[in-house]
Amino acid sequence: MRGDYLNWPRLVEDALSKWGSVSVEGPFENIVVSGMGGSGIVGDVVKLLALERLSVPVEVVKSHIVPSYVSARTLFVSVSYSGNTHETLLATARALEKGAKVVAITSGGLLEKLATEKGLPVFKTPVGLLPRVSFPHMLTGVLGVLDSSGLTVASRAEVEDAKRQLEREAGEIASEASSLAEFAYSRELLVVATHSPLEPLAVRAKSEFNENSKIVVKVDVAPEWMHNDIVGYEKPLFDEYRVVAFYDPDDQAGRGLVEFMVGEHERRGRRVRVLALRGVNKVGKVLYAAMLFGLASVELALKRGLDPAATESIARYKSAAGRIFGVGTLKP
Amino acid sequence: MRGDYLNWPRLVEDALSKWGSVSVEGPFENIVVSGMGGSGIVGDVVKLLALERLSVPVEVVKSHIVPSYVSARTLFVSVSYSGNTHETLLATARALEKGAKVVAITSGGLLEKLATEKGLPVFKTPVGLLPRVSFPHMLTGVLGVLDSSGLTVASRAEVEDAKRQLEREAGEIASEASSLAEFAYSRELLVVATHSPLEPLAVRAKSEFNENSKIVVKVDVAPEWMHNDIVGYEKPLFDEYRVVAFYDPDDQAGRGLVEFMVGEHERRGRRVRVLALRGVNKVGKVLYAAMLFGLASVELALKRGLDPAATESIARYKSAAGRIFGVGTLKP
Repeated sequence: MRGDYLNWPRLVEDALSKWGSVSVEGPFENIVVSGMGGSGIVGDVVKLLALERLSVPVEVVKSHIVPSYVSARTLFVSVSYSGNTHETLLATARALEKGAKVVAITSGGLLEKLATEKGLPVFKTPVGLLPRVSFPHMLTGVLGVLDSSGLTVASRAEVEDAKRQLEREAGEIASEASSLAEFAYSRELLVVATHSPLEPLAVRAKSEFNENSKIVVKVDVAPEWMHNDIVGYEKPLFDEYRVVAFYDPDDQAGRGLVEFMVGEHERRGRRVRVLALRGVNKVGKVLYAAMLFGLASVELALKRGLDPAATESIARYKSAAGRIFGVGTLKP
Repeated sequence: MRGDYLNWPRLVEDALSKWGSVSVEGPFENIVVSGMGGSGIVGDVVKLLALERLSVPVEVVKSHIVPSYVSARTLFVSVSYSGNTHETLLATARALEKGAKVVAITSGGLLEKLATEKGLPVFKTPVGLLPRVSFPHMLTGVLGVLDSSGLTVASRAEVEDAKRQLEREAGEIASEASSLAEFAYSRELLVVATHSPLEPLAVRAKSEFNENSKIVVKVDVAPEWMHNDIVGYEKPLFDEYRVVAFYDPDDQAGRGLVEFMVGEHERRGRRVRVLALRGVNKVGKVLYAAMLFGLASVELALKRGLDPAATESIARYKSAAGRIFGVGTLKP
């Protein structure tokens, strides 16, 4: 899988070559991005990029339930790598009933079939990857759809710059990832800590260590952390944590918040690894962090003698999901 | 502090007596609720109640950063029990600059002062409580403001019914809380697990156990949990967890999701306590859960010989926050 992550600049390039090919006509009062796991994280990152840039709210839906405000004034972005995700299919069907303008990001499956039947725009992502590895392709796809629909959260030039950064730095990121895997290989519980605009990247780190390394990870986000969790870490009954903390060096308050968290852990003797995200722009920082955590989580799996690609319990869930949602088995 | 929680029906009653006294004139395209910790959770619960009821999106901001879409078409609800929360004051000032209609929920402090200067509507909550204990008063206050502004997420009658439920059941909730505190008193890491619409109540449980019991808590939310965390629990390097899982018995898919999570933990020999939320309506379920977790977290503190009211590390943060945000010391 290491090669799959190192191949990301090629994935971004492929998606960039389709920039402008899919658009949706507005105007829109809000954007909803629906998706789960390695597909859903695309929505989180879109929200991160939109925070200080977009004139309409973005909500990420990680369930089968669509908020009641979804309407004909909603751009509904349905992201499912496989196209066969129960929650996303149910949410998308409901959004269509409510009159939302739907665009699908998928490699195929029932989502592509639905889109074809309903004449919905589709951004195709290549088949044969693990969803979590196809992240930069799906992300670039969504960024292109938004830009072409008058809802720019990152321009084509920014994504191109970020891609070049990734090409230049891939070797260095791989060696940082080895060091991070070494740090995370521990019987202490791994905590990933950051400041609020970067929460999606901490969630991404968690998910990568979950799926690839098969470890449990706790996510801590400042400044909310300072209003409750901080007290829990004062003298917990269970106190074995190892912390990876990261910040955006261009965000002074964010850096100060993370340094405060680090200080709290260090005063109690916990081991902390601090990272400053490198990047030519926000997309660059996102891709840097995602590649770093992806590679580190694969290395940790290999150190443990585990197959990073295997996710047997997710398969068990997928075979139960039709019953849970009362819709029976999917027939792709 | 037990008495403070058991006094909640009186707090709700007091806030109900002011229902309709504060309103804001729309129309609005979106709602932003700003607040941290015991005040911020009010926003999370408003979002929970709005999910299947409101025609505009609700976003909860737990930081000093205001999303770029905030405008004159935004209802900005600023919640700070003390009125002296750096993040909320900074976010509120920024929202005012952007032309948002601001309403303040506070017991006083700089937020009340700002509101008075700017002629903003204020819902006053009684002084002398801990912010986390004043939760039902602030919540009822916000529900009343929304209802009076044509944005009903819960009616006065629903809140009255929920209050009567709390009165009837307080004794039973207290005894359930004792049993839960017994269960949570462990050197295993406490995990609070639920399904996505109820995430705010899991976050509330975490914060209460953080602040009152001084323990670390991890929150797990289905169905997203089934797409990554589940793999982490397969064979983690660190594997000592004790799980409190709860669901809304009126949500069949939600119940199925939580039962699936419980099954995954039990097959690996972890101890799980499962709770079905009782309630005459959604507000009733919220207050039931909040009182249960509040009382349980106080009992756990007492079992540990700790003062549930003390939160010394939050005080340390508050004295550093002015420097971190580059605004100097607050002068209430």
